[in-house]
Amino acid sequence: MDNKQLAMQKHREWEGKIEVITRSPLNTREDLCIAYTPGVAEPCIAIEQDENLSFTLTRRGHLVAVITDGTSVLGLGDIGPVAAMPVMEGKCALFKAFADVDAFPLCVDSQDVDTFVNTVKLISKSFGAINLEDISAPRCFEIERRLIEECEIPVFHDDQHGTAIIAAAALINAAKVTGREIGKLQIVINGAGAAGSSIAKMLHQMGFGEIVMCDRLGIVWDGADWLTEPQKLLARMTNPQKKQGSLADALVGADVFIGVSRPNQVTKEMVTSMAPHPIIFAMANPVPEIMPEQAKESGAAVVGTGRSDYPNQINNVLAFPGIFKGALQVHATRITEEMKMAAARAIAAMVPEQELSCENILPDALNRAVADAVAKAVADEAVRAGLARI
Amino acid sequence: MDNKQLAMQKHREWEGKIEVITRSPLNTREDLCIAYTPGVAEPCIAIEQDENLSFTLTRRGHLVAVITDGTSVLGLGDIGPVAAMPVMEGKCALFKAFADVDAFPLCVDSQDVDTFVNTVKLISKSFGAINLEDISAPRCFEIERRLIEECEIPVFHDDQHGTAIIAAAALINAAKVTGREIGKLQIVINGAGAAGSSIAKMLHQMGFGEIVMCDRLGIVWDGADWLTEPQKLLARMTNPQKKQGSLADALVGADVFIGVSRPNQVTKEMVTSMAPHPIIFAMANPVPEIMPEQAKESGAAVVGTGRSDYPNQINNVLAFPGIFKGALQVHATRITEEMKMAAARAIAAMVPEQELSCENILPDALNRAVADAVAKAVADEAVRAGLARI
Repeated sequence: MDNKQLAMQKHREWEGKIEVITRSPLNTREDLCIAYTPGVAEPCIAIEQDENLSFTLTRRGHLVAVITDGTSVLGLGDIGPVAAMPVMEGKCALFKAFADVDAFPLCVDSQDVDTFVNTVKLISKSFGAINLEDISAPRCFEIERRLIEECEIPVFHDDQHGTAIIAAAALINAAKVTGREIGKLQIVINGAGAAGSSIAKMLHQMGFGEIVMCDRLGIVWDGADWLTEPQKLLARMTNPQKKQGSLADALVGADVFIGVSRPNQVTKEMVTSMAPHPIIFAMANPVPEIMPEQAKESGAAVVGTGRSDYPNQINNVLAFPGIFKGALQVHATRITEEMKMAAARAIAAMVPEQELSCENILPDALNRAVADAVAKAVADEAVRAGLARI
Repeated sequence: MDNKQLAMQKHREWEGKIEVITRSPLNTREDLCIAYTPGVAEPCIAIEQDENLSFTLTRRGHLVAVITDGTSVLGLGDIGPVAAMPVMEGKCALFKAFADVDAFPLCVDSQDVDTFVNTVKLISKSFGAINLEDISAPRCFEIERRLIEECEIPVFHDDQHGTAIIAAAALINAAKVTGREIGKLQIVINGAGAAGSSIAKMLHQMGFGEIVMCDRLGIVWDGADWLTEPQKLLARMTNPQKKQGSLADALVGADVFIGVSRPNQVTKEMVTSMAPHPIIFAMANPVPEIMPEQAKESGAAVVGTGRSDYPNQINNVLAFPGIFKGALQVHATRITEEMKMAAARAIAAMVPEQELSCENILPDALNRAVADAVAKAVADEAVRAGLARI
């Protein structure tokens, strides 16, 4: 049986990768009188008087909604809300397994931005935080921005920021092992969609040198006539020299390649054209922009991919469980840029100095200690910024 | 510590009465490759090709949404969506404990009927069925009707139909132990809101004699100028003699009183004015329309209440877990009147003939065998009616 067949068989056997269970005993009449009527009236009245008590008197304070519209699922694209649910359930299962955060999957059956935003907003008080997932760009930018404005709880599009946080963590350590100064890095990001945009913004905010972005039509520059509205903002933030041309042109002399695009976009020649001993993060899944062997043969010092069968797996399971755990721990009202940066630094710091090497820039994706370290960094930053509600 | 304090303390300790856990192992890289990327693409593709597979390849086939707007919660009234959540969680906990059905609580932050309906419809494909809860009348009627029309899954307002089913079950056996013929019963229902309306419709459909309804302004009759639109329909279905007057007038000579109204509405004199040895279901919570002792002293043969500290507890925990379990077992597209009647008969049949008495007309509320019997009756009826999807 191949892995595809095995995945189908296991999904049939599991009948769902999550389950909702009962925490309160319900065996006696007394149990029912406490957990249900008439006793349940007391927490209801308490929450009516102080809505913040919903975080402790119900599951809200442990609960993340994982919400999609199914428009940009894995490499499959727009497969619709119901077909996206196995991914949402998988994400929820990871939340629980890696951070003991309860997460519940929801699909919204609309591709209209207003409708999606209103629907999520109207159910948002059932949850402590919202993880948006697999929503296509550029719609995802407006959806996230509006939900952050309109909801009283953190809203976080993991495809953007989870990926950015883990890429930033990886780059902190890759710079360290290759003896580079973060502020002087020449960085090329291929893929100016949801993930690429967020990576660019985050690296820019963290002071990571000079960034040039590329998309299907070439280098993103302030003046190109093919840019989407979000890309126009990116063009102003990046590429100060207004370079033009192809990905190959962008890579000449660059220190870092970050790919969140498509398989096989980078040739050995392109790697050779970069600065000596470059850093290559080829994160397209499951086939990266360049295979690690080829990148290494062409002189790359550090190579990271999304794959578990090569060193330096850049997997956002290192980020999102801890980020939400930290936000929930202090009932944060939002997840700020500073909280995301704190998360990136915490992930990078999980590799002890003496264990850092070109083949080991990130903690293992299965290392369960990472979520707690990230949670602490995020919660501390929320408290510092006055965004904690406890 | 009194019971109110105990309920608060327990709710603080529990931090939620439900929990979302993981069913698939996530300990190794191989586990992640099957439950998440890349393996998860296979069930996604399968569901994209056949949406019905979502019932077996995700948790959908075991999953009920328990949804409120918080407008009519317990005896507390319109306390808002967030304050209603302890009740919703309690309901979800009962679903799991009594029928092994996964249920998840959601509150919708709007009192507008269109908005509520659209919001629930847009997330309905995340679930196998929808339990509406604690929505005020008459809004609840339109909300339920439209959601039944617009969703592909069962939608069931438990405050209406759960109560009606269990009242019908109780009345089947109360008629039996008092030697009455169901078709000849003179029935008075006090409370023409969500529960009362549904009880009247159900008893009417099941051929339960003649029904007269009362509300705060007296007997509901076809011509009264104070009726809401839903009550006008009820007025045409009930009270063929167009009786007018008060609850006391309605009760003269009646065999059955069913109260879903307010405490202390029925006096001993009213009971005495009824037919000899009447049947009294005084279901107001926690203080019934008349206390059982007083009803008995006034000649009542059978007395039922919502309370666990008296015989004949009329508790819809006997109904809803099994009804949804049965509907989910066969992936039913809706819950029909016939499925509800089958549930009522199944509940009544759970008391063996030789154990039936005036003090024992219903199975014990904690009897876990009831849900399976109800589920079987409901599933069988769904299959018979061609509403099963498997």
